[in-house]
Amino acid sequence: MSEKALAYLTENRDRLLEKLNDFLSIPSVSTDSVHKEDVRNAASFLETYLADTGFENVQQIETKKHPIVYAEYTKAGPNAPTVLLYGHYDVQPVDPIELWKSEPFKPEVRDGRLYARGSSDDKGQVFMHLAVFEALMKTEGKLPLNVKVCLEGEEEIGSENLYRTLQEKKELFQADFAVISDSGMVAKNQPTILYGLKGFTGIEITVSGPDHDLHSGMYGGAVRNPIMALSHILASMKDENEVVTVDGFYDGVEDLTEEERHLIEQVPSEDFVRATGITETVSEKGYTAKEHTMARPTFEVNGIYGGYQGEGTKTIIPTSATAKITCRLVPGQEPDRIQEALEAHVKKVAPKGVTVKVKKEKLSAKAYKVEPNHPLIQKAADSYTKAFGKETVYVRMGGSIPVVEWIEDIYNIPIVLLGFGTPDDRLHSPNESFPLDSYDKGMETLVYYWNEIK
Amino acid sequence: MSEKALAYLTENRDRLLEKLNDFLSIPSVSTDSVHKEDVRNAASFLETYLADTGFENVQQIETKKHPIVYAEYTKAGPNAPTVLLYGHYDVQPVDPIELWKSEPFKPEVRDGRLYARGSSDDKGQVFMHLAVFEALMKTEGKLPLNVKVCLEGEEEIGSENLYRTLQEKKELFQADFAVISDSGMVAKNQPTILYGLKGFTGIEITVSGPDHDLHSGMYGGAVRNPIMALSHILASMKDENEVVTVDGFYDGVEDLTEEERHLIEQVPSEDFVRATGITETVSEKGYTAKEHTMARPTFEVNGIYGGYQGEGTKTIIPTSATAKITCRLVPGQEPDRIQEALEAHVKKVAPKGVTVKVKKEKLSAKAYKVEPNHPLIQKAADSYTKAFGKETVYVRMGGSIPVVEWIEDIYNIPIVLLGFGTPDDRLHSPNESFPLDSYDKGMETLVYYWNEIK
Repeated sequence: MSEKALAYLTENRDRLLEKLNDFLSIPSVSTDSVHKEDVRNAASFLETYLADTGFENVQQIETKKHPIVYAEYTKAGPNAPTVLLYGHYDVQPVDPIELWKSEPFKPEVRDGRLYARGSSDDKGQVFMHLAVFEALMKTEGKLPLNVKVCLEGEEEIGSENLYRTLQEKKELFQADFAVISDSGMVAKNQPTILYGLKGFTGIEITVSGPDHDLHSGMYGGAVRNPIMALSHILASMKDENEVVTVDGFYDGVEDLTEEERHLIEQVPSEDFVRATGITETVSEKGYTAKEHTMARPTFEVNGIYGGYQGEGTKTIIPTSATAKITCRLVPGQEPDRIQEALEAHVKKVAPKGVTVKVKKEKLSAKAYKVEPNHPLIQKAADSYTKAFGKETVYVRMGGSIPVVEWIEDIYNIPIVLLGFGTPDDRLHSPNESFPLDSYDKGMETLVYYWNEIK
Repeated sequence: MSEKALAYLTENRDRLLEKLNDFLSIPSVSTDSVHKEDVRNAASFLETYLADTGFENVQQIETKKHPIVYAEYTKAGPNAPTVLLYGHYDVQPVDPIELWKSEPFKPEVRDGRLYARGSSDDKGQVFMHLAVFEALMKTEGKLPLNVKVCLEGEEEIGSENLYRTLQEKKELFQADFAVISDSGMVAKNQPTILYGLKGFTGIEITVSGPDHDLHSGMYGGAVRNPIMALSHILASMKDENEVVTVDGFYDGVEDLTEEERHLIEQVPSEDFVRATGITETVSEKGYTAKEHTMARPTFEVNGIYGGYQGEGTKTIIPTSATAKITCRLVPGQEPDRIQEALEAHVKKVAPKGVTVKVKKEKLSAKAYKVEPNHPLIQKAADSYTKAFGKETVYVRMGGSIPVVEWIEDIYNIPIVLLGFGTPDDRLHSPNESFPLDSYDKGMETLVYYWNEIK
């Protein structure tokens, strides 16, 4: 039954692209209050489209800032599964505008790519879902499963009101599983299932010594240097083998199975050296760089400061030194317990003569992982492979997507991350674009997927 | 024969203080070109005073900036020793002017202290020498030894032209020993001989990794973190016992003798904790804080920076991290060799995956030390004790005075550091002052000393 829908998409391709262009032409920049009405217009565009397609209970749920577009389709009946489809209709700012080759809100196709802010992140991918629902409704008169749509307008500003809304309207958004298309493939036309995301947490360490900068000639030899003390503390937290040496850090972390190592091995390698300009990669002892970035926890000092930072020398013992640390976590690691382990370690190794304070960062997230052989994942992979004509790879990613953790936290349902972006899409940068063959094959994937799930 | 000179100083006390006030009223701020003429006026004041006292060959030696006042007295004859007297007539700026209780260039006596910029550093102490020479000349008709006077106007701006002038006019300034009164006593009315100064040298370490700040989720696990690498390097250079763990750092350093430990023990203790606000002192294993600050080399990180320093978190792996390091050196340590040892250590421990660069600071100085039982020192100590009525203590200081190293370097003669300042003089700060009893007893000390040396 997919053939009819696919034919519909082909026949209506130009009209649908026109419609996508209308959507992309709305400058729904959520961070800028100048665009408040534009953001609302984008929400209204979706509201209208969903209502026209045959969704019920279509509404804009008000929040303190931008509305969440909700819609549902329940006519597949109580025996069909219900999917929660999450996406966002807001976009990043466009500065520096002078670097854009065409205007960010006047979509233009060049070399098979559709250039516009939001074409990949995430309006383009949201629109693909809507177009597929339209095709299924127009050709079959119904959808193969029940659907709840949650499209927010605040993703680019940290989804300020989403978590609360999901909690408050828990029943409204309740579903059997979730699908999110707000990510990418590891390479163009390489079907990619993202089956794990890392969590994160952070602390800030401040080492305080004298109450004013001291003359190193007068006091050097009597006073602990806060920068040196901080260096000793940091050096004691991760060794030269890139192994975190904090008691309890790896507690609960399951070692990689041979199967998972094999999955990671399949993923086309990014050339880390070329992409970053480093001399050579390093990774946790016993793991490849790919394994470590995808599937092992990390510990990074993101910033450090203390004392004199100007030209030349200033012979002082500074009052204090501070380091900012964040960790990317894997399943089994609790952010709170990791913060406690880090703090306990710092307190344990803190040398005498200085005062050491640990500030725990408030924002943190647990890691997310779904079994790659879960039927919902397998069906997505099969659909992907069928549409793109290439075996699907399974990846875990070092990044974190808060909404994933929140859906997991509130509903505890499987989440399928079906992304169609490519590494060259330039998200958040000038000249964002989306390849039209990803657009076509992505919709094909979705048609197969919904028909498989039913 | 000291009695007459001392009586002269007592009888002429008011007149001489008036004269000192005239000298202090000249705003000879060397750093500020607005005061160029004032600096020259201060030089002319000295030139006139020296000529009036009976010095010969009095002149202002021109430099690229401010003149050096030279004068000599040779009538003590070829069998008498010749002393090179060094001092400076320029002063620090006065900002913040609003914190001064009386005007910085209108000297005022309050509570036994003479308040004025330069009263202690160094115009007051220079004037004491000149008044003593006057007293000796007026009462004895001659000085007990030959004298060469070198008073510069650039000490507060790094003695830019002094070293070259001393080299170029080596014979003119040639003497048997040198006396410098540009330092202080460890406590008010506590006779203090400064018999050693530390040298110093420095390096800057920069660890470079990726060519742009990286997303820690995408690349954490494949890339060496430059801040962590720098922390490992720094932590490997000094241990928690405050012992420098760089090969060769202590080469050539003589251990403290029992005699020297005893001398240091005699020095009234500064309350390091109260003065600096630290929780407790730390010092090199096997040495007290006093021994370490005075007589053992030190290694301090003066500043560190890298990555994100703003509020909250930024989950990056930064491109680079930099630390600024200076060491205070003791006799036996060559600044160049110390820099090489530090660089060799850094290169040895530098981990793979990052590029580590060491920049050697150009400005460095060797340590200076004279034997505390050298006859010239012993006579100074005896004179001191006689004038102040208290046993003299012998101290080595963590600071560096470049002119001491230069005189040592060019002439290789003993240098007697006879300072009369006190810890409360507020050098370089608002409300600089000098206690009048230090002024009186200091001149008494000088009268005894010159009569002993002859």
